[in-house]
Amino acid sequence: MSYRAPLRDIRFALKELADLKGVLALPGYEEVSEDLIDAVLDENARFVEQAIAPLNRGGDVVGAQWSDGAVTTSPGFKQAFREFAQGGWQGLLHHPEQGGQGLPKLVGAPASENINAASLAFSLCPLLTDGVIEALAAVGSRAQQDLYIPALIEGRWTGTMNLTEPQAGSDLAQVATRAVRQDDGSYRLFGQKIFITYGEHDMAENIVHLVLARTPDAPKGVKGISLFIVPKFLVQADGTLGARNDVWCASLEHKLGIHGSPTAVLLYGSGKGEVGEGAVAQLVGEENRGLEYMFIMMNAARYAVGIQGIAVSERALQLATAYAHERIQGQALEGSAGPVTIVSHPDVQRMLLTMKSLTEGARALAYVAASYCDKSRRHPDAEARARYKALYEYLVPVVKGFSTEVSVEVASLGVQVHGGMGYIEETGAAQHYRDARILPIYEGTTAIQANDFVGRKILRDGGAVAAGLAKEMRATARALQAAAETGGQHADALALIAGRLEAGVEACERATAFVLEQAGKSARPVFMGSVPYLMLAGFVHAGWQMARAALACQEHARAGAGDDFYVGKLATCVFYAGHVLPRSQALCDAVLEGEITSRYAALAVRS
Amino acid sequence: MSYRAPLRDIRFALKELADLKGVLALPGYEEVSEDLIDAVLDENARFVEQAIAPLNRGGDVVGAQWSDGAVTTSPGFKQAFREFAQGGWQGLLHHPEQGGQGLPKLVGAPASENINAASLAFSLCPLLTDGVIEALAAVGSRAQQDLYIPALIEGRWTGTMNLTEPQAGSDLAQVATRAVRQDDGSYRLFGQKIFITYGEHDMAENIVHLVLARTPDAPKGVKGISLFIVPKFLVQADGTLGARNDVWCASLEHKLGIHGSPTAVLLYGSGKGEVGEGAVAQLVGEENRGLEYMFIMMNAARYAVGIQGIAVSERALQLATAYAHERIQGQALEGSAGPVTIVSHPDVQRMLLTMKSLTEGARALAYVAASYCDKSRRHPDAEARARYKALYEYLVPVVKGFSTEVSVEVASLGVQVHGGMGYIEETGAAQHYRDARILPIYEGTTAIQANDFVGRKILRDGGAVAAGLAKEMRATARALQAAAETGGQHADALALIAGRLEAGVEACERATAFVLEQAGKSARPVFMGSVPYLMLAGFVHAGWQMARAALACQEHARAGAGDDFYVGKLATCVFYAGHVLPRSQALCDAVLEGEITSRYAALAVRS
Repeated sequence: MSYRAPLRDIRFALKELADLKGVLALPGYEEVSEDLIDAVLDENARFVEQAIAPLNRGGDVVGAQWSDGAVTTSPGFKQAFREFAQGGWQGLLHHPEQGGQGLPKLVGAPASENINAASLAFSLCPLLTDGVIEALAAVGSRAQQDLYIPALIEGRWTGTMNLTEPQAGSDLAQVATRAVRQDDGSYRLFGQKIFITYGEHDMAENIVHLVLARTPDAPKGVKGISLFIVPKFLVQADGTLGARNDVWCASLEHKLGIHGSPTAVLLYGSGKGEVGEGAVAQLVGEENRGLEYMFIMMNAARYAVGIQGIAVSERALQLATAYAHERIQGQALEGSAGPVTIVSHPDVQRMLLTMKSLTEGARALAYVAASYCDKSRRHPDAEARARYKALYEYLVPVVKGFSTEVSVEVASLGVQVHGGMGYIEETGAAQHYRDARILPIYEGTTAIQANDFVGRKILRDGGAVAAGLAKEMRATARALQAAAETGGQHADALALIAGRLEAGVEACERATAFVLEQAGKSARPVFMGSVPYLMLAGFVHAGWQMARAALACQEHARAGAGDDFYVGKLATCVFYAGHVLPRSQALCDAVLEGEITSRYAALAVRS
Repeated sequence: MSYRAPLRDIRFALKELADLKGVLALPGYEEVSEDLIDAVLDENARFVEQAIAPLNRGGDVVGAQWSDGAVTTSPGFKQAFREFAQGGWQGLLHHPEQGGQGLPKLVGAPASENINAASLAFSLCPLLTDGVIEALAAVGSRAQQDLYIPALIEGRWTGTMNLTEPQAGSDLAQVATRAVRQDDGSYRLFGQKIFITYGEHDMAENIVHLVLARTPDAPKGVKGISLFIVPKFLVQADGTLGARNDVWCASLEHKLGIHGSPTAVLLYGSGKGEVGEGAVAQLVGEENRGLEYMFIMMNAARYAVGIQGIAVSERALQLATAYAHERIQGQALEGSAGPVTIVSHPDVQRMLLTMKSLTEGARALAYVAASYCDKSRRHPDAEARARYKALYEYLVPVVKGFSTEVSVEVASLGVQVHGGMGYIEETGAAQHYRDARILPIYEGTTAIQANDFVGRKILRDGGAVAAGLAKEMRATARALQAAAETGGQHADALALIAGRLEAGVEACERATAFVLEQAGKSARPVFMGSVPYLMLAGFVHAGWQMARAALACQEHARAGAGDDFYVGKLATCVFYAGHVLPRSQALCDAVLEGEITSRYAALAVRS
């Protein structure tokens, strides 16, 4: 088995940290029981382990291939995608009226994590399709929803997001694709989009492109961008496919990783189709509000990419752990009759526990965020909904930035655990190292997440959400300290975790105070440390979840209901507190030196 | 120009930090002037920029190819190697009597850095050959030296190190290759070696393998390993080549990076050659002392791999810096009339300065170590020689472990600076990310360096060398503080650097005290933190060099002799102090928690 869904840890995070019970008690989930969720997770695990995971290496070796505008996906991808859709996985989170299962995001998160762990490259297709469904469901007309969403959920069609152009990457103000209004109310699009994930492929009958473009009279900048639907084949009123539209895949990129995911250059309006010149497009919502709509997709996609980080981390961890238990090399530190498996070497343990604690911390944080999201949508109390919405939105850039940066570290350690074998492609560790590297870049680089975090999540509310979380984190630290003071087997462990969490919270508070105060004077010192600040939040919030996990372990132990899982989990929490959380001090210190470092940085890059 | 040798920073590090004058004043360097060194560095830069650097990308795309036992190297490598040898670069450090230039290691370090920055994959061939020359010069017989060294220096032949076998990676006690003594005093070798860099290729007439093997009656473990010379073609007494020996390349590995460097599986004694069964071998030195001899090569090679880390960091930095000055995207933070180059964005500056300060810090540290090495060999005073030897040996695992771990981070940031373009192979940033990843693994993983550091460099002398360095570092901090107190333009910068260095030194001292005390009780808690401890030493020692650099900049400024280089250097030192040195606290904290984390780690990996 090349990948095993970490069901035990997933269930622990869902039930003991992310309040699955509370989510299932929300209005609209009356029919959804914990048993049902368990069954969904079991089936999800079975499906991805058997149908997806075995394709991952082949998808790396034989990536998507372009030939004369057509793209052939990696061996097995097409069949797997059919099974994926037939299994109902594309519709997991979407509305039952449109063919979805209507399950909470808290269940979608682990399902998506497992699919991504099985194959990042494969899973990008459903990931983008989800974003298109979510955007159409939110801002499409009823007719657009009816025409597109069911086919997307059934997997007959897939979706893409078309933002980037050669001159417009992070800066969407520069989008130049032209949209010309036609007499019949439709539009024609002309321009070039790059980095379009699954922009062309052979896994579905049709591809629904959501495209940012600019009408001739639109205002400059981001306020003049509109959002359009451009199907590869025009869709007739009855849902059947019509003429080949004027959107063409000019080439695929040659990438460091995720070779199985075709990254397309798309040309709009080159006149080669069956529709004359210009790609036939339908406006979504109103003109000039495209960026706002696109953010609906982007927020979902950013969270989803955060989950991808956890997924590739988990897969790298499993591979390295298996190797460490198998590879015989060196004597035990305390002496041994002969060579031992390398898992007994302390530095191998350090690497594996760094990988494990980062992965599990990031997972717990992401699931808690999903829980907030569900509550923000369905909580009966409006004030609670608003509170959870603020919490979720605060955490989206953290989940995205932190989980993906961490995935690069975890995948790199995964190579290191293998020693020289890790550098050999056949081992598989190198693929995770290559695949993970895109995650802190796409759907907004870590710097973009940090800008969002500082600008919209900290400065806009004066740090109110951050302060509320700090209060909750301190309560956890106090509870741990109290548990430690009652003594017992794990007293020193709980005290360590309490102390390190307390110090982490204080680091967050000091950094936030600096950001709030400094922003009023000059922004540059703040943004010199915005990524360290985002990472600080990530390490401490994930550390908080690890601290809550340790408390839960302690309660099970006290009740005599602990088993090996809880022992291992507590040990992982201890490691996180001992080896990982101290980073928060270093990150805080970097943030606080923003004034002098930004002043001198300007000198350094000039000379 | 794809790579420019960073001559200004190299000269600064040589002359203002690593005491080039002092090295040139050593006995035996009477003929070597500073002008000569400058000319050598200029010529080295010219050569690598023109002849080697342009081959790097081609060497990645078209790696070394195996066919029926023969290996064809990447396009241009063969010609470049000829020019390399003709230019005298292989002999730079070696004895003039054997055809070398006899220059100090302090000059070899930058020359080797530049060649490696131009192409890591190419440079591995000279790197290994250097190790073979050094080992033969130290422990070969006079006849062996005369027969092999001149041809190696002339580049007619190249050298390899054969340690690893499938079951014997880090643990050389498991070496199983058999050496059977023949009546004529030669030996026959039988066995399989893996991961042999340039184990087969077409760049030279002959390949001289230095091979670890075991005679039938040898003691078990590392005390029963002997070192042998196995030439690909037997060498006759007059130096001409004879029969094809029984050593064969069975295959090349398919690696994550350094594709231009053939990594061979070598079979000894398969009976296919012109010499009957068994590879004809000559013993080097005495039987059963092979490991000791191999350490001569390994110490040189470990230092050289540390230099490789600096080299790939510098190249990644140059690529990212050029892109940041060229790529237009986004508005300036303070507002701008239109989009600006991304180098003005604070987080891009943060990334570039992280890359630059780590690269320059690692460079300065490595050059200072080279200077110690030269003094350990040639200082007229025996006590001074011993002191410098201890300092150099202390620094070898730091230079190797720190510079290579850092290179992975720097190369990863290099990808990130490029955004989405960084993930496209044609950009070149991804190659550095792939190439760098081997560096913390080969010639002893970072964990092996950390074992060496803790076991041989800290515990053996009770931390005496470390304490001596701490004293020197504190003196630098005091000098900076004193300079800060005189006021002036950079007073706050100097004070920041002084404070952070002081804190870093204290972190080192606390960690060392823990290591010394704990080792007497139980080793496991020490080795749970041995890699963090090694990295702590690296960050602080490199930080010390950056602090010394800042002092030098301040002195130039005070003398009115500063220019843009010194301004940029001081700014880089400020950044290192503000953003990088704080990591020392986090690493120290991790070391100090060794007892509890190792205790719980045992539980985590069991469950």
